[in-house]
Amino acid sequence: MENKLSIYNSLSHKKELFKPINPPFVGLYVCGPTVYSDSHLGHARPFITFDILFRYLKYLGYKVRYVRNITDVGHLENEATEEGEDKIAKKAHLENLEPMEVVQKYMNSFHYNMAQLNVSLPSIEPQASGHIIEQQQLIAKILKNGFAYEKNGSVYFDIEEYSKKYKYGKLSGRVLDELLENTRELEGSKEKKNSFDFALWKKATPDHIMRWPSEWSEGFPGWHMECSAMSVKYLGNKFDIHGGGMDLMFPHHECEIAQNIAATGEESVNYWMHNNMITINGQKMARSLGNFITLNDLFKSYNPMVIRFFILQAHYRSTLDFSDEALKAAEKGLNKIFSAMKIMPKLKVTDSSNKDYVKALKLRIDLAMDDDLSTPQAIAHIFDGVRLINSVNEGHLSIDDTDFKILNEIFFKFVIDILGLKPEIFKSTDDQLDEKLIELLINIRLEARTKKDFSTSDAIRNQLLRLGIILNDTKEGTSWERS
Amino acid sequence: MENKLSIYNSLSHKKELFKPINPPFVGLYVCGPTVYSDSHLGHARPFITFDILFRYLKYLGYKVRYVRNITDVGHLENEATEEGEDKIAKKAHLENLEPMEVVQKYMNSFHYNMAQLNVSLPSIEPQASGHIIEQQQLIAKILKNGFAYEKNGSVYFDIEEYSKKYKYGKLSGRVLDELLENTRELEGSKEKKNSFDFALWKKATPDHIMRWPSEWSEGFPGWHMECSAMSVKYLGNKFDIHGGGMDLMFPHHECEIAQNIAATGEESVNYWMHNNMITINGQKMARSLGNFITLNDLFKSYNPMVIRFFILQAHYRSTLDFSDEALKAAEKGLNKIFSAMKIMPKLKVTDSSNKDYVKALKLRIDLAMDDDLSTPQAIAHIFDGVRLINSVNEGHLSIDDTDFKILNEIFFKFVIDILGLKPEIFKSTDDQLDEKLIELLINIRLEARTKKDFSTSDAIRNQLLRLGIILNDTKEGTSWERS
Repeated sequence: MENKLSIYNSLSHKKELFKPINPPFVGLYVCGPTVYSDSHLGHARPFITFDILFRYLKYLGYKVRYVRNITDVGHLENEATEEGEDKIAKKAHLENLEPMEVVQKYMNSFHYNMAQLNVSLPSIEPQASGHIIEQQQLIAKILKNGFAYEKNGSVYFDIEEYSKKYKYGKLSGRVLDELLENTRELEGSKEKKNSFDFALWKKATPDHIMRWPSEWSEGFPGWHMECSAMSVKYLGNKFDIHGGGMDLMFPHHECEIAQNIAATGEESVNYWMHNNMITINGQKMARSLGNFITLNDLFKSYNPMVIRFFILQAHYRSTLDFSDEALKAAEKGLNKIFSAMKIMPKLKVTDSSNKDYVKALKLRIDLAMDDDLSTPQAIAHIFDGVRLINSVNEGHLSIDDTDFKILNEIFFKFVIDILGLKPEIFKSTDDQLDEKLIELLINIRLEARTKKDFSTSDAIRNQLLRLGIILNDTKEGTSWERS
Repeated sequence: MENKLSIYNSLSHKKELFKPINPPFVGLYVCGPTVYSDSHLGHARPFITFDILFRYLKYLGYKVRYVRNITDVGHLENEATEEGEDKIAKKAHLENLEPMEVVQKYMNSFHYNMAQLNVSLPSIEPQASGHIIEQQQLIAKILKNGFAYEKNGSVYFDIEEYSKKYKYGKLSGRVLDELLENTRELEGSKEKKNSFDFALWKKATPDHIMRWPSEWSEGFPGWHMECSAMSVKYLGNKFDIHGGGMDLMFPHHECEIAQNIAATGEESVNYWMHNNMITINGQKMARSLGNFITLNDLFKSYNPMVIRFFILQAHYRSTLDFSDEALKAAEKGLNKIFSAMKIMPKLKVTDSSNKDYVKALKLRIDLAMDDDLSTPQAIAHIFDGVRLINSVNEGHLSIDDTDFKILNEIFFKFVIDILGLKPEIFKSTDDQLDEKLIELLINIRLEARTKKDFSTSDAIRNQLLRLGIILNDTKEGTSWERS
């Protein structure tokens, strides 16, 4: 099986041709959410980015096992010092719930938001708290290999020892001296040999709710353990792609790499992929800056498909700035695509062809996607397709049957299946009733006009306008669109 | 906090006033599905039954923690002998998937079907495979207390030993001699002291995929362990209600009781509740009889709300026979209720009252629900409400503002919130567009009739009919309903 897909590998810092270990199978692991609050805008980007990868790999013919985890234990408040309450236990305390009720509540909310964004369900969605044994087994291996030490019931990864044999920091490019410099200031745990060491297992303090027995203490796994343990459990010791947000590169992914190598002597992942961050009006998004926005709030103003489209208009490795103007522009662009898709089935097909142009268009979209998933380039070509459809519709250009089929593939296969942009017009049976009722109203209006009953025809047009339906009268008849 | 809710306790074999251990909190555990195939009709009944209990308890003012598990390991093919492949591993083998991919696939499908049936999400939905440590801890306790024995790496519950101190079989009423008689014929495991003993931990055979380390062997928990371990983990050693289908009473729930008592010396559950089974055209539903129907197939012919309503028309402890005629009758009944709900907001409110009747109606519904959740009785009273609404609408009866408010509570609070019957007309914004478009068409038709343009007015009526919308002209104006 051959493909021309290149992806940027964060580990080698360059674009590489994607070669799966065992084609047609592809193993893909992506770091999922820590489910202690409603999903925010920052969650939309990684899950849409890797949804595109998942969909595109399937389009190329691969059988993808896509594992995306749920972090429901071990993610402490203060990531740098690895101290403080568990994020979920803290929320449970605040909401007066059992931690697993918090997990369920926000996991449901996450799933709901992802469905709104038309993000595909992963093949397996393992929870960290459900894989304590697997994490303990991995910790035991690392201890046995001499790259970790136990202190007062907690187990820490020994970066100094690891660095004698392997290179720590090769993903993020951080060097040990620099780490030492940076972390010396922090309080850190007194139990660590070096302040940059990180916890594999933490002994639970008496008030810590989420805890399990182990050979070291009653406690809980360190945050980085779960992804090492669960990715390997479901994808094998060696798998193809690991993805996540750029903010996870250090320390999370760096620690994952070290853990896996310390346990097996080998890298587990062939390609590391990272999406860039979202800014809001040029600023970093943060609770403290007050520009933090949940998806639920965002969806009050914008259709989730607009958000999805907006995210795809930028390359996943570029920063992306959110603003109302930018979103309104995206909404307009998306509506143009959807309007073209509505016109398309009714296009007149002739013998005269634009074959080369349409064929080239399809090719250019494939090339764009093959080039490290360049959705912005692909979308630019789709707009060329929109212009073509409109020109044919207006009679300026003509297409033959072959062109028509390629256009169909571009819009139905590419826009809907791969970019995952679901036009409302194709949604549900209920929406079809809407459409049929609107068509009925258009016909009644037409008849009224034929009878020169303009008061009725204008009334229908105005009333529809108030319901958000815009009628466009052309020579060919009346079309409609949502405002 | 006081209530008048009586529930039938399968353990005491009688109706009892429900007294929670720690009001206003109520702990509710229900056995969830084994996720190795699409949900079938048999799954609809328990989850709707306990959804009603969950909703009604909340209506009474309780704060309910509702735990409903996912069985994803340990449920072997041959339940009687506790031999054969794990149901999920077998399916994984057939579908060429990793067992957890099978789990994810059918868990997603289950969740989707439950959402279609408007079954509420539980507070916590723990997976058996995610609670291996908790199950191992419980097994260790039972072993320590002398009610289990290890043989070749497997651990079995010692029913003979247990029966010296406690009574085994008190839920199902089975006695030991009878069990001995029945199970002597079966192959069973040679390792058991008595053929009726059951596995707490099974050593994995070399080809068994799903396995975890333990002090006894690399293996997996027996099917009954998970519910004992997870109910107590999330609801405490002593909790209020445990529900499930009557088919689970023996051996599953009987074993759960024995496990909990063997571990702690005490019953964990105060009230055991069991829903009765579904038959199809008078026959038991079974794959072998070829009358097995998945919810996905059923929903092709019937709206999920019709299925829900049909199930609620029978008391949960009665058997329920499915047939096309019965479902069609349910559909008709449900439409009557929904039509009345559509008329209701437009009812004329006068000074003249039927207060006593309407008040009594509300009271009778509460009494029915308090009587072991008698949804059939409650629904009968709701039909009295439907007749009242229609009579008021037709001008035969009149209601005042107080009556109107009570009627609203009956229909909006009771039908929608407690019975969970969602009328399509109140569904989504898209549906509201439908309605508005239909209202617009009705107005255009009215105007056409005023102008004596009967060809237009008839055309609108006929075209709407073809879209499934029936117009009814009355003195008060034109109403509509879906056919």
